[in-house]
Amino acid sequence: MGSLLCFLGPLMLIPLVVAMYYGESPYPFAVSFAVTTIVGSLLSFRFVSTGEDEWERREGFAIVAFGWFAAALFGSIPYMFDGVTPLNALFESMSGFTTTGATIFVDIESHSRSLLFWRSMTQWIGGMGIIMLFIAILPKLGVAGRQMFRAEAPGPKEDQLKPRIRETAKILWAVYVSISVLELILLLAAGMSFYDASTHTFTTMACGGFSTYADSVAAFDSPLIEGIITLFMFIAGANFALHYKTLYSDKKSLLKDNEFKFYFVIVAIATILLTGILLRDTYDTIPTAFRYAVFQILSILTTTGYATADFNLWSDSGKVILLAIMFIGGCAGSTAGGIKVVRVLLLLKYARRELFKAIHPKAIMPVKFNGKSVPGDIMNAIISFVVIYLLIFLLSSAILAILGMDLTSSITASIATLGNIGPGFNLVGPMANFSTVPAIGKLVLIANMWVGRLEVFTVIVMLTPEFWKR
Amino acid sequence: MGSLLCFLGPLMLIPLVVAMYYGESPYPFAVSFAVTTIVGSLLSFRFVSTGEDEWERREGFAIVAFGWFAAALFGSIPYMFDGVTPLNALFESMSGFTTTGATIFVDIESHSRSLLFWRSMTQWIGGMGIIMLFIAILPKLGVAGRQMFRAEAPGPKEDQLKPRIRETAKILWAVYVSISVLELILLLAAGMSFYDASTHTFTTMACGGFSTYADSVAAFDSPLIEGIITLFMFIAGANFALHYKTLYSDKKSLLKDNEFKFYFVIVAIATILLTGILLRDTYDTIPTAFRYAVFQILSILTTTGYATADFNLWSDSGKVILLAIMFIGGCAGSTAGGIKVVRVLLLLKYARRELFKAIHPKAIMPVKFNGKSVPGDIMNAIISFVVIYLLIFLLSSAILAILGMDLTSSITASIATLGNIGPGFNLVGPMANFSTVPAIGKLVLIANMWVGRLEVFTVIVMLTPEFWKR
Repeated sequence: MGSLLCFLGPLMLIPLVVAMYYGESPYPFAVSFAVTTIVGSLLSFRFVSTGEDEWERREGFAIVAFGWFAAALFGSIPYMFDGVTPLNALFESMSGFTTTGATIFVDIESHSRSLLFWRSMTQWIGGMGIIMLFIAILPKLGVAGRQMFRAEAPGPKEDQLKPRIRETAKILWAVYVSISVLELILLLAAGMSFYDASTHTFTTMACGGFSTYADSVAAFDSPLIEGIITLFMFIAGANFALHYKTLYSDKKSLLKDNEFKFYFVIVAIATILLTGILLRDTYDTIPTAFRYAVFQILSILTTTGYATADFNLWSDSGKVILLAIMFIGGCAGSTAGGIKVVRVLLLLKYARRELFKAIHPKAIMPVKFNGKSVPGDIMNAIISFVVIYLLIFLLSSAILAILGMDLTSSITASIATLGNIGPGFNLVGPMANFSTVPAIGKLVLIANMWVGRLEVFTVIVMLTPEFWKR
Repeated sequence: MGSLLCFLGPLMLIPLVVAMYYGESPYPFAVSFAVTTIVGSLLSFRFVSTGEDEWERREGFAIVAFGWFAAALFGSIPYMFDGVTPLNALFESMSGFTTTGATIFVDIESHSRSLLFWRSMTQWIGGMGIIMLFIAILPKLGVAGRQMFRAEAPGPKEDQLKPRIRETAKILWAVYVSISVLELILLLAAGMSFYDASTHTFTTMACGGFSTYADSVAAFDSPLIEGIITLFMFIAGANFALHYKTLYSDKKSLLKDNEFKFYFVIVAIATILLTGILLRDTYDTIPTAFRYAVFQILSILTTTGYATADFNLWSDSGKVILLAIMFIGGCAGSTAGGIKVVRVLLLLKYARRELFKAIHPKAIMPVKFNGKSVPGDIMNAIISFVVIYLLIFLLSSAILAILGMDLTSSITASIATLGNIGPGFNLVGPMANFSTVPAIGKLVLIANMWVGRLEVFTVIVMLTPEFWKR
């Protein structure tokens, strides 16, 4: 944990440079850097290693869960210098690192450019994973690294590209950086300033969704920029291990993958449906309806959370499509959150098999994925994930409603934070913000973001008595 | 199917007697009786048995699914004589037999007393199961009876009380009739007329919820009557096989059952929470808040759907509690609908086990129910049930919203019909009705009620290609 903070601290020197460039005070980031690094160093010295390198699964869960919480906590220091209350700063910082994109900023443009840069940058770090970056850069951690890798990205698919976990982490981060650079160049070519292009690249590639404008991507009002961002949201919502394989080994890796195909089908069907509905209820021409439909579908499905239209003003027919895909999310191994396409796909296949077995009870029919049978324990983990995920969603919605929020806001705020999406409907719509949520509700939503980003188990196991037994 | 209609027809002679007693025209029920019985007889003669008694599972599913649909179809004839359109009549009749209790009647009291009696009576027949009544009364059907029994009540628990399925059906119907008589006597003693007492006994014991008054049970405004109905809703929402065992063998059968205990816990927690919320937001005293909380909780949880308060006017804090328990339903082997308490309980235990296994991956820890390990195939069936159930719910909500209904009405109308509950919120609230739902939406809701009553598989398997393969 100490090493992790020592590693996080220096990252704060980047917004410090931005502050100096724009003539803003470098003081907030200098102090944040100092505090984070000093606390990290003290922790490293205070709790010396016992010399035993026996890592258990529990340690992996604990360090990743608390590590993320610590990153959000120390990452919130710069916000407080800008007059944000500690609770709101933690909310915004957690929303950043977990790539949620839900904001409590009432007037985004009133904040300093360096703070908004840091806010976008935390999403980019959190997107591919702060732990994975740590593993990629620090000297090898051995078994510990493997445990942490699994605890941070516990998807049902095997994404280890190389035998050594450090190599895998390096490759994934390299692919992530390369595609980010490509998006940055395209956005610059489309006429964006370097500041806008870099902050929006950070938050597109991370499926994060923070914008430096209150109007989000609608502020640019440019079909070209929207098109570039739509494309990169689609890429960021797919599996980065497959991007690597497509580039360096089998060119058809993506097209052969059952999850990617299903992801594409969902995007296509949802976009067609929404275009039709928007044409009937909201916009006059097919190109306009399609422009707003495809952007919003990819923004919500990939859990990015940008907006080019205030979809809160759409008819409920349009909203129901967005609400439905909020429960899906992007692909495993992507920077997107949510339940994940592969889990939804395997659950559907599983239910389909039971229908078959209702007619032929003795038939043996395994659930298949990419041509292979899915082992029973992976299926068990997927089902339990979904059950616990939906339970947390229900509990969180109920708490917000009991606190006095209306039902639609409660439900969509819960799924938008648990799925790391960002905006919901009503009070927490895309052109609104989370500042009006009661304090206890904010704590619940902070927990949602944290639990959702680490795919439930890593945090929730710590609530079981077994976790704390020696 | 022919025999089933020949059996349904004569039941229409009962409302005919009611019509004559109240001086209403006996003509509608005479015609309905004649049509149903003649069609039934023609079907019996036209399609003679091939002599082969080899029943497959498919035949069991088909006869039960189509049998229920036929009952709703022919049961809708009397409504048409009262000026109800064919679509609305089918809706009301399906809502009756499936014990949903959703109504398209705009002015309930304007309809004839005999029709309202028939409407309540269909719920009572459907409550314990029209197929089960058929099995209990008709000469033994052997394997066919067993297949049909399973297709009508495919709960995860083994409820066969006697080796012969006909004996089991007889016992369950006998317990059902006995408890119904007890409720009838108590309601008469509480001062209700015989007409009101019998119709409300029919719809309480069936967890149906049709009332002969637009104001539902609020029309009586009597804490005593509400208390009696609350008690019998609680009884009807529990397992009738356990009621039998409690009466005739082990007095502690109910108290030993894990499902019943969990059912009780849900009722207790939901009532306490709702009482607190109503006290804060709506009512002034604890007794008043408790009175309305406990009635509405049991009405919704047991999927009855009566109301003593227009809960649509409650705060969203109160509504969220009702919405959450809409997704649970009553116990398996009860007359209630919904996902069922036992399925929810086993899913929770299953998810709990996976949390344990995340820490101890090699541990073997079976999911237990009533002290026994739950077999894997039962767990599979439960999970698939819930997945398909939620998918139908989502699809149905989306269709209604796309047709132009608001989100809250779409979502609650879907779960209220699929769970055989009755009222939802907003347009379809407890003091409103389903008459404003667009025609296609009504067809979707009719399908929901049918699919929900037969616990999904019995109807949905017919949509798979395997079902139709020779």
